[in-house]
Amino acid sequence: MADLRDAGLREGITEVIATTYSISGEPNAAPVGIHNEAGRYCVALYRGSKTLSNVKATMQLAANVTDDAVLFVRTLLDNPEASDFSRFHGFPVLRNANSWILFRCREIEERADYLLFMLNPLAVAILNKKTCAVNRGLNAVIEAAILASRYDIQISADVRERIKEQIRDYARIVERCGGRSEKEAMRILIQRFV
Amino acid sequence: MADLRDAGLREGITEVIATTYSISGEPNAAPVGIHNEAGRYCVALYRGSKTLSNVKATMQLAANVTDDAVLFVRTLLDNPEASDFSRFHGFPVLRNANSWILFRCREIEERADYLLFMLNPLAVAILNKKTCAVNRGLNAVIEAAILASRYDIQISADVRERIKEQIRDYARIVERCGGRSEKEAMRILIQRFV
Repeated sequence: MADLRDAGLREGITEVIATTYSISGEPNAAPVGIHNEAGRYCVALYRGSKTLSNVKATMQLAANVTDDAVLFVRTLLDNPEASDFSRFHGFPVLRNANSWILFRCREIEERADYLLFMLNPLAVAILNKKTCAVNRGLNAVIEAAILASRYDIQISADVRERIKEQIRDYARIVERCGGRSEKEAMRILIQRFV
Repeated sequence: MADLRDAGLREGITEVIATTYSISGEPNAAPVGIHNEAGRYCVALYRGSKTLSNVKATMQLAANVTDDAVLFVRTLLDNPEASDFSRFHGFPVLRNANSWILFRCREIEERADYLLFMLNPLAVAILNKKTCAVNRGLNAVIEAAILASRYDIQISADVRERIKEQIRDYARIVERCGGRSEKEAMRILIQRFV
């Protein structure tokens, strides 16, 4: 088994796209954060999410590591196309991920909003190594997507307006610093939320 | 010559560490943003910066691509140690960069605050390809460092207080999402500014 840091899961929280499948075999993809504390991996899955119900049914999850802004936003808002998935012994993973790690999940804690799962790696594939660089546009898309994911659960009009404002601030950074992928991702977010 | 996108200079602005040397041969390192618009590269160098005076003297600059939070913060606040540099035909580059691109610089525009230089690649070295992933802690360090770089030029106490507040907000993200490198980088920033 490769070192999972080599697959992109460094210390702290890595934002990835979790792929899972339902009891009826339907694949799903959605952003989650993978915690790595001294080589112990875990994930918090929010109540009501498709990822949580799938993990409860199968006790497996693949963490797809990517720096593709569009992929984050598309999987946040909708399920990707069937053609975005490939299969590893039947398990859905993302064809264009930089790497993926298939985990067995074990529930270790119940909280009001989420369940916490310990993760044990079953398989890992490193698909694409690149020269990693800092682009503030990508950062801004990720922060805007996280805000957007909280939008629907807010009932206060003030809080919703504040979220829209912050998303517009991030859109300005993307316009200045982002590449085509970041601009496309932000266009999708703005169209849906602002 | 390798495609510079392969060396990490994607579309939009890539935040890198510029290395230069002075007329007396002293190396310098400081963060700058490299603009890539359809394969045309340029950089804005601010008046009063060591990078600008060195580029005016030598008309060369190396863009060191990195995702190391500590390296960004250290080169923002101070010049790195002599041992951080290596030399390419005498030109200083950063030993631990993921890649570097040595550019010839040509001044194309003068503005009140900065001079704009067109960049033509002379040499490129790709040193370290990795599985690129998203860590909000790294993003937060970069945003906090950019705020910090504006701190000293502010005279309004209100603006300074607001910058400190924002840096503290980013510090909370780093505490939650960052790895050791991001936490160390933020510790250095906080020590200096907050």
